Amino acid sequence: MDKPEEEFDRVDELIQLSLKLFLERGYDNTPMSLISKEVGLTKAGIYHHFENKEHILYAVHKRSVERNLLPLIEKAEQISDPETRLRTYLYDLARQLTHEPTATVLLSEARRMSPEHFKEIRGVWRRSYGVIHDAIVELQKLGRCPKHLDPAFATFSALGSASWIVFWFDYSRPEGGEEVARTIVDIFMKGLLA
Amino acid sequence: MDKPEEEFDRVDELIQLSLKLFLERGYDNTPMSLISKEVGLTKAGIYHHFENKEHILYAVHKRSVERNLLPLIEKAEQISDPETRLRTYLYDLARQLTHEPTATVLLSEARRMSPEHFKEIRGVWRRSYGVIHDAIVELQKLGRCPKHLDPAFATFSALGSASWIVFWFDYSRPEGGEEVARTIVDIFMKGLLA
Repeated sequence: MDKPEEEFDRVDELIQLSLKLFLERGYDNTPMSLISKEVGLTKAGIYHHFENKEHILYAVHKRSVERNLLPLIEKAEQISDPETRLRTYLYDLARQLTHEPTATVLLSEARRMSPEHFKEIRGVWRRSYGVIHDAIVELQKLGRCPKHLDPAFATFSALGSASWIVFWFDYSRPEGGEEVARTIVDIFMKGLLA
Repeated sequence: MDKPEEEFDRVDELIQLSLKLFLERGYDNTPMSLISKEVGLTKAGIYHHFENKEHILYAVHKRSVERNLLPLIEKAEQISDPETRLRTYLYDLARQLTHEPTATVLLSEARRMSPEHFKEIRGVWRRSYGVIHDAIVELQKLGRCPKHLDPAFATFSALGSASWIVFWFDYSRPEGGEEVARTIVDIFMKGLLA
């Protein structure tokens, strides 16, 4: 990597501003000319970094999963006890979503990415799914979770209760975030292990 | 209502086709000219029924809550025991979402409605929220659910696990729907009443 640091900052600023515009206006309603104006770069300057608008959408998603999701996955994967691992991951995920409202639009615009880009991002989502799913299967094998529960459906149930946060949480009152995450984990873990 | 039945059918067809187009292309990417072409009506013919495209979006939402959500709410509101009411409503809601994949785009496009229209649709969503929330508060008063649980956060947790269905359920294999709904209700109710 021999790009100067300043250039990296500029690219990161472009990604952040694009995310903001995608959130406010939707991906389709955000022309390159507006991104160019907001970030204070000529269109040629932007095309120097990104082939086209889809590449910016991909960069926005990549930045989001690398900053918000991968660290939680890697932390969870270090924990050997499946109950602690599941409890920790679901809490961290819910807590993260009370900090980071951007996942909403990212999700609804994800399919605008090229198949290759979408596949890469979906790979991280699948790893997140795997953390929960594998912990449930381990708990079932250990006899700590009823075997009649379908592990896939249970996983989506947990992911849903956390992911839904972005649709209802009041981001102007972030102090509630901890209790939201605690409530979700509390109900799910008790329901799962009952 | 003195409109001939045929005209109602035509309007219903227009709403259904618009929903299909909004789902496939997004609301912004669906011009009136395309709706007009697909439904086989002139633009003037459409404007006879709907003032503008936003009115079609509103009609799509109205049809969706009237057909899919209100009947479940009304059924639940007849049940006096709060546990049975909650269990029934959450099951019906999840089951409904395994039948009806359209809620996804409806949700992400809801804010494109006028404030008055959005308020009306949101009123039905709030009533749905109320069914779950009020049952939880009743269960807490009866000592059948721990008082430390925040009823609002618990409600959103339940709604999230059900609503998330539209993002992952494989609608080409509808036979799994019953077990999905059962799993969600099973985990949530056990977690809540534990």
